[in-house]
Amino acid sequence: MMDTLNIGLIGAGRIGKVHAATLAYRIPAAKLLAVADIDAAAAQQLADQFKIPRATAHYRDVLSDPAIDAVLICSGTDTHARFTIEAAQAGKHIFCEKPIAHSLAEIDQALAAVHKAGVKLQVGFNRRFDANFRRVHDAIRRGEIGQPALLHIVSRDPAPPPIAYIQVSGGMFLDMTIHDFDMARFLIGAEVEEVYTQAGVTVDPGIGAAGDVDTAVIMLKFANGVIGTIDNCRRASYGYDQRVEVFGSLGAVSTMNNYPNAAVLSDGASVRRDLPLNFFMERYTESFAAELIAFVHAVLHDTPVPVTGRDARAPVVMGLAAAKSLHERRPVRLSEIAADDER
Amino acid sequence: MMDTLNIGLIGAGRIGKVHAATLAYRIPAAKLLAVADIDAAAAQQLADQFKIPRATAHYRDVLSDPAIDAVLICSGTDTHARFTIEAAQAGKHIFCEKPIAHSLAEIDQALAAVHKAGVKLQVGFNRRFDANFRRVHDAIRRGEIGQPALLHIVSRDPAPPPIAYIQVSGGMFLDMTIHDFDMARFLIGAEVEEVYTQAGVTVDPGIGAAGDVDTAVIMLKFANGVIGTIDNCRRASYGYDQRVEVFGSLGAVSTMNNYPNAAVLSDGASVRRDLPLNFFMERYTESFAAELIAFVHAVLHDTPVPVTGRDARAPVVMGLAAAKSLHERRPVRLSEIAADDER
Amino acid sequence: MMDTLNIGLIGAGRIGKVHAATLAYRIPAAKLLAVADIDAAAAQQLADQFKIPRATAHYRDVLSDPAIDAVLICSGTDTHARFTIEAAQAGKHIFCEKPIAHSLAEIDQALAAVHKAGVKLQVGFNRRFDANFRRVHDAIRRGEIGQPALLHIVSRDPAPPPIAYIQVSGGMFLDMTIHDFDMARFLIGAEVEEVYTQAGVTVDPGIGAAGDVDTAVIMLKFANGVIGTIDNCRRASYGYDQRVEVFGSLGAVSTMNNYPNAAVLSDGASVRRDLPLNFFMERYTESFAAELIAFVHAVLHDTPVPVTGRDARAPVVMGLAAAKSLHERRPVRLSEIAADDER
Amino acid sequence: MMDTLNIGLIGAGRIGKVHAATLAYRIPAAKLLAVADIDAAAAQQLADQFKIPRATAHYRDVLSDPAIDAVLICSGTDTHARFTIEAAQAGKHIFCEKPIAHSLAEIDQALAAVHKAGVKLQVGFNRRFDANFRRVHDAIRRGEIGQPALLHIVSRDPAPPPIAYIQVSGGMFLDMTIHDFDMARFLIGAEVEEVYTQAGVTVDPGIGAAGDVDTAVIMLKFANGVIGTIDNCRRASYGYDQRVEVFGSLGAVSTMNNYPNAAVLSDGASVRRDLPLNFFMERYTESFAAELIAFVHAVLHDTPVPVTGRDARAPVVMGLAAAKSLHERRPVRLSEIAADDER
Repeated sequence: MMDTLNIGLIGAGRIGKVHAATLAYRIPAAKLLAVADIDAAAAQQLADQFKIPRATAHYRDVLSDPAIDAVLICSGTDTHARFTIEAAQAGKHIFCEKPIAHSLAEIDQALAAVHKAGVKLQVGFNRRFDANFRRVHDAIRRGEIGQPALLHIVSRDPAPPPIAYIQVSGGMFLDMTIHDFDMARFLIGAEVEEVYTQAGVTVDPGIGAAGDVDTAVIMLKFANGVIGTIDNCRRASYGYDQRVEVFGSLGAVSTMNNYPNAAVLSDGASVRRDLPLNFFMERYTESFAAELIAFVHAVLHDTPVPVTGRDARAPVVMGLAAAKSLHERRPVRLSEIAADDER
Repeated sequence: MMDTLNIGLIGAGRIGKVHAATLAYRIPAAKLLAVADIDAAAAQQLADQFKIPRATAHYRDVLSDPAIDAVLICSGTDTHARFTIEAAQAGKHIFCEKPIAHSLAEIDQALAAVHKAGVKLQVGFNRRFDANFRRVHDAIRRGEIGQPALLHIVSRDPAPPPIAYIQVSGGMFLDMTIHDFDMARFLIGAEVEEVYTQAGVTVDPGIGAAGDVDTAVIMLKFANGVIGTIDNCRRASYGYDQRVEVFGSLGAVSTMNNYPNAAVLSDGASVRRDLPLNFFMERYTESFAAELIAFVHAVLHDTPVPVTGRDARAPVVMGLAAAKSLHERRPVRLSEIAADDER
Repeated sequence: MMDTLNIGLIGAGRIGKVHAATLAYRIPAAKLLAVADIDAAAAQQLADQFKIPRATAHYRDVLSDPAIDAVLICSGTDTHARFTIEAAQAGKHIFCEKPIAHSLAEIDQALAAVHKAGVKLQVGFNRRFDANFRRVHDAIRRGEIGQPALLHIVSRDPAPPPIAYIQVSGGMFLDMTIHDFDMARFLIGAEVEEVYTQAGVTVDPGIGAAGDVDTAVIMLKFANGVIGTIDNCRRASYGYDQRVEVFGSLGAVSTMNNYPNAAVLSDGASVRRDLPLNFFMERYTESFAAELIAFVHAVLHDTPVPVTGRDARAPVVMGLAAAKSLHERRPVRLSEIAADDER
Repeated sequence: MMDTLNIGLIGAGRIGKVHAATLAYRIPAAKLLAVADIDAAAAQQLADQFKIPRATAHYRDVLSDPAIDAVLICSGTDTHARFTIEAAQAGKHIFCEKPIAHSLAEIDQALAAVHKAGVKLQVGFNRRFDANFRRVHDAIRRGEIGQPALLHIVSRDPAPPPIAYIQVSGGMFLDMTIHDFDMARFLIGAEVEEVYTQAGVTVDPGIGAAGDVDTAVIMLKFANGVIGTIDNCRRASYGYDQRVEVFGSLGAVSTMNNYPNAAVLSDGASVRRDLPLNFFMERYTESFAAELIAFVHAVLHDTPVPVTGRDARAPVVMGLAAAKSLHERRPVRLSEIAADDER
């Protein structure tokens, strides 16, 4: 077992900063040795803030540094697959933000490189580490609700991203629902075999003009018989809505939203509380730290990572199937989606 | 305007008794003059309990009584259509328990008879009169949530009915989901155009052997673009689960369950409360009274009834479409279901 | 055991009507034979509504009727003691609205008459029969919270009564807090030994001018060591606030308020629900029926009544002690209050 | 305005570590230059963990360091007053954990030294910075509940401290209720004039043998007429119970507890959730950081500190008055408590 994990960070954007802070303050066993960003100033600023010894504009400076054991890939999605492949070839363990790619072919190439190199790869499905969803997961695993039968996921953002983002993100199913696809697999512990999508544009016609939808329900049929639904919208007027419910033979478990405070106000109009925590940086703060702690632990102790390459691939297949279902107005089996047959 | 509505009751079973009590105690403007039941002793017992002047084993005694203005049809489902037709021909206003029939042909005959006679017909979708669902309905109508986009109905019974009942009930979609189909139309105020069903047997293999399912999710596509899901199970271990959520452009409205008390207990194990009200006789008590009050008011004041013949027919079409979708494993448009093409 | 309890009602006002309805509709074993009210028209109207054979302006017509087994005394408070004494002398069992009198001397005379006659007397502390408080009571009795240590009662009305009422009611401690004094004894199952009051006028200066307070906290010291507080206000802007919390060695049990519906609305401003049920006729509907059912049962089966003469007297002593504490600005032991030493 | 605040930490125990972490990770404008602890090894360990340049066993090394602008006094309570005086004399701004002393004479000496030196002093009443209580505070200040009339504080610990601690802590009113006394003043924004205490021993007879109580209710009368109650227990079986309710002329505001997750589990037994966050290190994490951020900001910007010397003194007076009330079994005015007349 290694004592300390030396880490290089690729990408000094928003999520890169979150992970740098976690490494600096909360993981004594990890040491951030270098940060790379195509924007050299951003890399330098991050290095200054967190006392990182080296800042560079070239990710390969990180990959070629023999002192570095593992890399965090926090750059743009279009670079994930390539950087993963190169990092694997350089013998680095990898934590990569989701998704590895929108294309199954690229994902498969990246996973093959990881496999060949024998390095560890963990993908950033942070919500698995959230206390609420973890508690639901544990209730199911412990048998507190018996055999699961029905799953309902509500996942609504407070506001849509810019149209420009939607045009390159792969669409709602791949940039937003992908978290819910992962959550569905995580909670139920089985693979989805078939999906059926109904969706439309209710938030912004510009999203429709960009070829995407902003409101959708996706029905999931799992291999173990569980039936699930995912309820998505790009904009909830009351903020960030992140709930699940799982119903089983012995009971049900559900989560409420998280709030900035637990105060209740009663007056002549209503009994009320403030709105839920507004977006993922506030709502999922702890989960971003927890996933990294888990990654560092898995590498140092050479134990399995909690979110695998298979976990990276399956939600992309589900997203492609959901889009195909919407397009063809029929249930689509995941087996219909192959690496060489994407939309 | 009539001063008093003279009523005859056909069917002295469980729901007949509930309506008799409402008429006796809570509607001064209504007078129950006669009760008929094929079981003469049951009719007599009810007459004794509520001081009803006449008890008979023959429903036609009620229909032919010129003093009677309106009849409540609370007999077995297989008699609803026939009794409705005869009551209409006798010029009586009609309150009929749901469904009028499992067959669209029979329903259409009954509705035609009602139309021809010019009498009023109200169907017993009592949940529309429940305070929780009424509040959700009103929130939508008042614009409190803007334009509705997504609907989710959870409707789970505490325990399945006897297999013998399932064999004649038309199956879960017609005996249980029918209430949810009606609720969906009531809340959204639009017709459903297409349904898609996933379902299975998780509660009792005997239900599967009887040709039915006991666990289902049905996706609804409304004419106004709203997407809905209905989540059903014949048995929830924690009791009767009756909730809805409607999400719109300006907000969301949802209902919790109703409980026998509002006490919360905290100890070394958990923070908890007692289980929800267990079944429809406790949960929906007030709605049974409210629907009858509304019927009596509509007849006396010659105003439209709040649940019409059209409302009686549409959920049956939805149930037939849901079954067809399950059978054919594809989305089914309601326009595919016609009176001469039933399963 | 008697088969049927023949009852006479004295007082055709608001609460008299509530009890008449309960007897008519919900207690088959009781028969209301006569109603008396000094306002003969009111008596006749009630008799017509509930098909009561006899209406009279003279309460003694009821007391002298040999067919009548029990009387409900629902007349003005100033008549309760006298009517109770006469009813006892006439051998009638008695259900009397609270309080029997504001004066301990009068109460003691009434209780002595009841004792001498050997009839049953139940006093109308209806809240003991409310599902929420009953559940708290049962949690304590069953040991679910261990040994009780702390009690907190919140009891706030939606609006103050007319000043004219306050001038004759005995003041807030005797017309409003009296219910909470009873609740404290009911829940803890022990007597209070000492009270300490802080109070003021925050709602209406007119109440202060009438010599009363409208906002108060009363601390209770029970014989078994439990410490309690009662938190009262004549006006809560959000409606009727009726909650308790009991904390014990193994846990705590508390009640929330009751609401007209269980709907929750979320929008850009807040997550909220409608206001609680507004006043006692809506909030405590079921408890009024339940107390009467219990009275009829106790008389017919000759079992102890659930709210006794002692229960009628103790809260009045507490109210007098609370007033004395406020006046003398010191803790007052209940033993200081005697029938011949009232304010 | 200074750019950076150079800080020395006195006391490397539990709360010292919490503050060191906050300074290291969350306040870029602060720099921790030195740590002192009578246990030199503890000081060194903290210095190593947070890269603090200097560790020493002698607090005067910190006070005499001219580079240091401000000190955090996190040592034992019995040293607070002396260290505060010396720090003030050395011209350092001071953040001191509560209480400064149990003796008013000592507190007054310390406050006089601070006043004479013209340095800032903030006292560690961290709960003022908790999101729940802050929201209650703000609701009152913004007028959301109108004029406050009634206050109820529930403050129960999960388990009592060791008897050895109780023997030197000044007793429950000074080691535990002191937070609630501060909360009462913070929320209501007025001084308390009189207190009345009822208390006993229900948790552990050993606490009684040590001369203290473990269960208490303290009634507060504020100068502005508000009436308050504080409900304390050394042990709540269900964990850490920290709630308040303030009732006013236009409404009420209350807080629920904080929980480790928002999951709800329903099964055949109950509808329940996990226990609240268990103790102050988990429950009040954020408030410890927020109070320090506020202190650093106040010193750097030369604005008033949010918790003053007066705020340090008043709760001690209240605690002494509460003890006197318990001892003398009567309401005690705070004006009865003077620096030269303590128990």
